Amino acid sequence: MAVGLSHPEELPAVEGLRLSTTSAGIYKKSRPDIVLIGLSEDARCSAVFTKNTFAAAPVVIAKEHITQSNIRYCLINAGNANAGTGKAGLEAASSICSELARLTHCSIKNILPFSTGVIGEPLPIDKIFRSLPVLFEKQGNGTWLDAARAIMTTDTVPKAISKKVTLENTEITINGIAKGAGMIRPDMATMLAFIGTDAKVEGRVLDQLLATAVEQTFNRICVDGDTSTNDACVLMASGKASNKVVTTIKSKSYGILRDAVVEVCSKLAQSIVRDGEGASKFITIEVHGGKTGKECLHVGYAVATSPLVKTAFYASDPNWGRILAAVGRSGINNLNIDNISLYLNDVLVVEQGGRSPGYSEEAGCAVMKNDEITVRIFLNRGDCTETLWTCDLSHEYVRINAEYRT
Amino acid sequence: MAVGLSHPEELPAVEGLRLSTTSAGIYKKSRPDIVLIGLSEDARCSAVFTKNTFAAAPVVIAKEHITQSNIRYCLINAGNANAGTGKAGLEAASSICSELARLTHCSIKNILPFSTGVIGEPLPIDKIFRSLPVLFEKQGNGTWLDAARAIMTTDTVPKAISKKVTLENTEITINGIAKGAGMIRPDMATMLAFIGTDAKVEGRVLDQLLATAVEQTFNRICVDGDTSTNDACVLMASGKASNKVVTTIKSKSYGILRDAVVEVCSKLAQSIVRDGEGASKFITIEVHGGKTGKECLHVGYAVATSPLVKTAFYASDPNWGRILAAVGRSGINNLNIDNISLYLNDVLVVEQGGRSPGYSEEAGCAVMKNDEITVRIFLNRGDCTETLWTCDLSHEYVRINAEYRT
Repeated sequence: MAVGLSHPEELPAVEGLRLSTTSAGIYKKSRPDIVLIGLSEDARCSAVFTKNTFAAAPVVIAKEHITQSNIRYCLINAGNANAGTGKAGLEAASSICSELARLTHCSIKNILPFSTGVIGEPLPIDKIFRSLPVLFEKQGNGTWLDAARAIMTTDTVPKAISKKVTLENTEITINGIAKGAGMIRPDMATMLAFIGTDAKVEGRVLDQLLATAVEQTFNRICVDGDTSTNDACVLMASGKASNKVVTTIKSKSYGILRDAVVEVCSKLAQSIVRDGEGASKFITIEVHGGKTGKECLHVGYAVATSPLVKTAFYASDPNWGRILAAVGRSGINNLNIDNISLYLNDVLVVEQGGRSPGYSEEAGCAVMKNDEITVRIFLNRGDCTETLWTCDLSHEYVRINAEYRT
Repeated sequence: MAVGLSHPEELPAVEGLRLSTTSAGIYKKSRPDIVLIGLSEDARCSAVFTKNTFAAAPVVIAKEHITQSNIRYCLINAGNANAGTGKAGLEAASSICSELARLTHCSIKNILPFSTGVIGEPLPIDKIFRSLPVLFEKQGNGTWLDAARAIMTTDTVPKAISKKVTLENTEITINGIAKGAGMIRPDMATMLAFIGTDAKVEGRVLDQLLATAVEQTFNRICVDGDTSTNDACVLMASGKASNKVVTTIKSKSYGILRDAVVEVCSKLAQSIVRDGEGASKFITIEVHGGKTGKECLHVGYAVATSPLVKTAFYASDPNWGRILAAVGRSGINNLNIDNISLYLNDVLVVEQGGRSPGYSEEAGCAVMKNDEITVRIFLNRGDCTETLWTCDLSHEYVRINAEYRT
């Protein structure tokens, strides 16, 4: 049921990043379910992770490794999240890193592990051990699209985007892949997403670039309001392109690179919502005129997570009262409802806190029939604006999540 | 689909409170949909209301009236919430109070209006005007159960409870009715609930009694996490019983009365969850060992509002990882996951943050097959405990809310 999302075409390679995939037999269906990304020796890597306190074992380990060392490998499995697995889970993730370090002659600290799938099941480390030599041998044979397919769980479409930009006459490639359809309300991080470029970028500039891109994109989407235990977003820069190293966020090159990375992340983030579990509508929520960005986000997320609003969208029912009710419970201090207006696309529905005299049910219905709808809320109390993306709540969402483990 | 909830029997009358109902033709189905409750001249009345900023017009007016005057009448209509209706909505609610004041020879300030139903539609005041003389004429002919039926919207079962206690050898009756099945996460108030007693209670003691009862009962339930625009809970004490006036919360009589009112409110609140839209499971969430009650509630509501947890319950799937993920995103500072344990009924599922060695999927499945399940979460970082009640998220919830207006 992915909304306005077609199967991506193959992506170009990114020099300095070597991909391989194989089937470890972890995912419930037989298909490639494990990915190895090898980074060139000079590559820089930046990552952000979930803020869920029950962070998965691989997240705990990856957070430790990335602060201590250059990253040479990312290893990702689908089908098992290795979350809620206590000490045994940490030991499992560590032993896999050790085995990969042994095979590849690097340090365990050079490796970032990632897992996604069912929470609370022991990680089948034997299956992963058996697949490591295969992945190592096939290094560079896999494509980005192969990797995007191998990390899917309830996704119905792989998410993969490529973008080329020119830095000082040098063509730079930026590839990104992501997975995620449920347990989506990333908090300072995202579902699994891997972005790779051949650009030369200094480490701390890369950190800043990732933080900026994530905040505007992955941190602005919501499927069901549940923040995953395994969210992670990784930006890898191999440095194989011949551009002059980007050493400051004030440079023109940084601006070009940032805009391109934001575009890739934005499309990936929106792809996750378009392929949200059971989604039949893609909904953009704009909140204008807030005193702060934070209060715009409070309002936006109250609307985006409301089951009543989401079921109304599913029914193509312009039940705008539910949107007002969500705005009203969003916890904004001294919100004057007489100042609030609401549009569905370009149709003015509410002004001065009540139904606009010019609004007709027919006009509302006409908007709601679309697959893609923009809700525009004007608080009229300040100059801040935020935009976020969400989807509807359908029978299919309930079916997928009621049947997920069975 | 109401869980463990049978149709209530008729309640005894409460001396000093006169009920009547009629069909005003506001609700989509033809049935009594408007209720008048007349209070004796010496009665005391206390009320709490929604904190939703988009409070409905009748809420705005009722809040004003109750601070300024003794209440002589409560007028309640179902089928239209008179919310999101701006100035026209306020004028409509006022004009109805005026007309009722004229008929009953009291002041407009002696009247509390209440509405429940669809948000954003103009209140059909002509229909209400026509029904007022009928209601006035029938004063005292209606029963509490009639009233409970007339205020229903998506409820499948009327909610009505009666309780008798003895204060200083005087038998006191406490009746309560409530409505509500969706848009349920009351905030300092509740859905529509009306509790009536013949006890003699001083006004400020009655306020304290209602606040205490609501905080432990209606403010501890959640169906979908949406806080209504029309929530209100009213406690009426006619003073017709011959007990000595309860003048302090330190008296033995207050304790007896409080326990009885809490019991009535608790059963009504739980009835709302049992009859939650599409509910097939009644779930009690206990959070123990928090540093503060507030953090216990944060954890409890994160679990209670998680669509993933709720769909797992619907599927009778012991997918406890989703509960941990919800605990993890609840925003508690410095939560040490190694200290957390989780029980489903008496089955220990998680200890030290991971699956208990003694836990088996079979034991988890056996618990989940029940209609009524208790989730017990132990944070092990303090002495506070909170309990709240919720239900699952089913196909029926989506159907009801996708079809609500059509």
